[in-house]
Amino acid sequence: MTELDFAKGNGLITAVVQDAKTKQVLMVAYQNRESWEKTLATGETWFWSRSRKELWHKGATSGNTQKVVNITIDCDADTVLIMVDPAGPACHTGHTSCFFTPQKLATQS
Amino acid sequence: MTELDFAKGNGLITAVVQDAKTKQVLMVAYQNRESWEKTLATGETWFWSRSRKELWHKGATSGNTQKVVNITIDCDADTVLIMVDPAGPACHTGHTSCFFTPQKLATQS
Repeated sequence: MTELDFAKGNGLITAVVQDAKTKQVLMVAYQNRESWEKTLATGETWFWSRSRKELWHKGATSGNTQKVVNITIDCDADTVLIMVDPAGPACHTGHTSCFFTPQKLATQS
Repeated sequence: MTELDFAKGNGLITAVVQDAKTKQVLMVAYQNRESWEKTLATGETWFWSRSRKELWHKGATSGNTQKVVNITIDCDADTVLIMVDPAGPACHTGHTSCFFTPQKLATQS
């Protein structure tokens, strides 16, 4: 079993949440050891809210939980990729994904 | 133009790099303002290495640069999703993606 490196992120690993079916990247959030272990134990996503400084069960209030389909750990063990089957939009704005604001490149007109 | 929130991550935003064609998530890295601006200006990915504490042009030594196809910013402007056309594997191990270590769930045998 791979030991995660919580130290590098001051107690937090980074979690990328991707839709298992559409492959759309839905959100990025952070996990302390407790939220990581709850994710593994329950099969739904749990995070650590950096702004509210509290454990956060995704969808607990909105109903938009995320069922974990599989998880892979990156090469230096400080980031995880969580493939999910989402019950609804990931974003609090109602968008399917939190990534919805386009950024222009200098090479684009 | 969306102003990014570098403050929340102590001067860094989180960048998820996804293959524009296959939709595979390739890596997660971090950007300070300089690497963000270099990415926009050059159309290739630049990061800030947290371990080496230096600006890092992805692929400068390996040749495995990443051509930026498009970028979206997340709802609270502290994370970006960079879709790329990669010249080679993203991972220093030679894997296409840095995410190659599977994690078992408690519900899996």
